[in-house]
Amino acid sequence: MAATVKSSVKVFGGLLQRLTHRSSACACDMTFAVYMPPQAAAAPVPVVYWLSGLTCTDENFHQKSGFARAASQLGLCVVMPDTSPRGVQIDGADDSYDFGSGAGFYVDATQPKWRDHYQMYSYVKAELPEVVAAAYPGKLSPAASICGHSMGGHGALTLFLKNPGMYRSVSAFAPICNPTAVPWGDKAFKGYLGSVEAGAAHDATELMRQYSGPPFKILIDQGAADNFLSGEVNQLRPDTFAAVCNERGVELELRMQEGYDHSYYFISSFIADHLAFHAAALK
Amino acid sequence: MAATVKSSVKVFGGLLQRLTHRSSACACDMTFAVYMPPQAAAAPVPVVYWLSGLTCTDENFHQKSGFARAASQLGLCVVMPDTSPRGVQIDGADDSYDFGSGAGFYVDATQPKWRDHYQMYSYVKAELPEVVAAAYPGKLSPAASICGHSMGGHGALTLFLKNPGMYRSVSAFAPICNPTAVPWGDKAFKGYLGSVEAGAAHDATELMRQYSGPPFKILIDQGAADNFLSGEVNQLRPDTFAAVCNERGVELELRMQEGYDHSYYFISSFIADHLAFHAAALK
Repeated sequence: MAATVKSSVKVFGGLLQRLTHRSSACACDMTFAVYMPPQAAAAPVPVVYWLSGLTCTDENFHQKSGFARAASQLGLCVVMPDTSPRGVQIDGADDSYDFGSGAGFYVDATQPKWRDHYQMYSYVKAELPEVVAAAYPGKLSPAASICGHSMGGHGALTLFLKNPGMYRSVSAFAPICNPTAVPWGDKAFKGYLGSVEAGAAHDATELMRQYSGPPFKILIDQGAADNFLSGEVNQLRPDTFAAVCNERGVELELRMQEGYDHSYYFISSFIADHLAFHAAALK
Repeated sequence: MAATVKSSVKVFGGLLQRLTHRSSACACDMTFAVYMPPQAAAAPVPVVYWLSGLTCTDENFHQKSGFARAASQLGLCVVMPDTSPRGVQIDGADDSYDFGSGAGFYVDATQPKWRDHYQMYSYVKAELPEVVAAAYPGKLSPAASICGHSMGGHGALTLFLKNPGMYRSVSAFAPICNPTAVPWGDKAFKGYLGSVEAGAAHDATELMRQYSGPPFKILIDQGAADNFLSGEVNQLRPDTFAAVCNERGVELELRMQEGYDHSYYFISSFIADHLAFHAAALK
C-alpha cells in the first residue's frame, strides 16, 4: 500500500523522510527512511539500500552514521528499512535482542509462529523497492546497490548473492559472514526456518561456496577491536568468508580497522568510503 | 577532583571518551565527553568547547552531529560538557524541559533553591578546563574556542563576550541571542537569578551593546525553517543580535539556511564549517 510521509527534515541539501505503509509481505505497518539527495531535483538518482543490525530501527543509521554528507555529494538516494515487523502480537517476540523484534535476520520465516509476519527477505527484496519507487515518482533510476552492518551486513551479502544482477555492488560493516556456524545464526535459523541447515540458503559463506558467476568486488570494513569478533564467541567470521571468496575468484577488500569497535562511531568513520564504492558501481 | 574514564571509542582515527568527576562548582558528579584527534599523539592540540541545548546531555553532539570527521582532519580536541547538574535532589528540577535538569542555561544561580548546584557558568568557564587539562596532560595547547547550539549557542556567545581573551573565536547554531526578551530566558533568569533584569549580564545582545573591544568575527548558522524562530514565539532573535553587532562594528556572519530546522540534522550539515572557522583562529 502507498506510503505516507511521517516526517521530513533537510540534511546536507537533501531531504530525509520517514514513511509508513501497510506491508503486504509482513502483514503489518512498516516504517522506513529515505534520503533524497539534492541531485534528484534535476535527474533520477540511483539507490543504496542500507540494512541495519540487531536492535536497530530505521532511525539508527540516519541519526548516527553521518552518511548524508557523502550521499549528498555523490548524489545517492539511501533507503533504510526497519529490521523486523513491528506491532505484531507474537508471544516471545520482544524477549531477546537477537530474535524477534529488531532481529528479522532478512529471511522469510517458514515456522508457523513467525511466518505470517517475519518475511523480511521478501520485504527488502521486492516490496520495499516498489513502495519507494511509488513514493518518489521520477526521482529514482533503476540502479541499486546494497550495504549493511552486522545482521544487516549478513542481509546485504545474502540478498546480493541470491539475486544476481539485482544490485550493482555490495559492501558491509562487520557482517555476520557465516551465520550457520555461530550462535546468532543458530538461534535465528532454528527459530524462523526450523533448522540451522535451512539457514545455509541465507549464509553468505555458503552462498559464496557455490558462486560461479563473473568476478566482482566486495568491500568489508571490520573493526579489529570489535567485541563480537574477538570476544568469547566470534559471531562474525570474516576470515572464513575471505577464504571462500579467494577460492571463488571474488575480490574481497577486507579492511581490518585497528582499534575500532562494532558501533556507529566505527561506521561513521568509514561510511563515506562505502558510499563512494557504490557510487562508482552505480554511475 | 580528577576525572575517571567511563568509556572510550575510536572515531575517525581519534579517541572519544566520556569522563566523570566530582564537580566542586556544581557539588555533584558531572559527566563530559572529549574527542582527542590523532594529531594529539604528536603535539598539543587546541580545544573547542561545544555547549549543547535544552534537554541534551554530553552525548547528543557526539552521537548525532558527525563532528568527528572535521575535528580529526583539523586536529581539534572537542570538549562536550553536560547541560546541567545531575542527580541532585531539588524539588521540581525534572518537571520541565526548559528549566532544571538539562537546562542549566550556563549561568551561576543565585536563588537559594538552585545556587548550591546550578553553577554551570563557573563550571564551563573555570572548572571544566582544569579537569580536562589534568585528564590529558601534555595533549592540549592553551588555545581554546567555543561553539554551541540553541541554549548552548547562548552559552557560547555569553561566555565569549564576558571573558575577553579567554576564547580565540566563537560560533553558534540557532543561538538564543536575546534571552531577556523571550520566554526561555524569562523562565531561566527568574528561576536561577531571581529576575529577568539580572539576566542582562548573561544576554548576548545586551553584552554586545556594551562591547567596546577590538573588532572580531562571529559565525552563526540559523535554520530558516526553525520552529523556534518562525513559530508562535521567536525564541532566538538573531536579527536583534545582528543589528547590535552591526552598531558595534563586530562582523557577524549570520547565515540563514533555507529549509533547515533546529535539529542535529541541521547541525550535522554545517558543523564542518564551524570547526574550520575555529581552526583558522586557533592555529
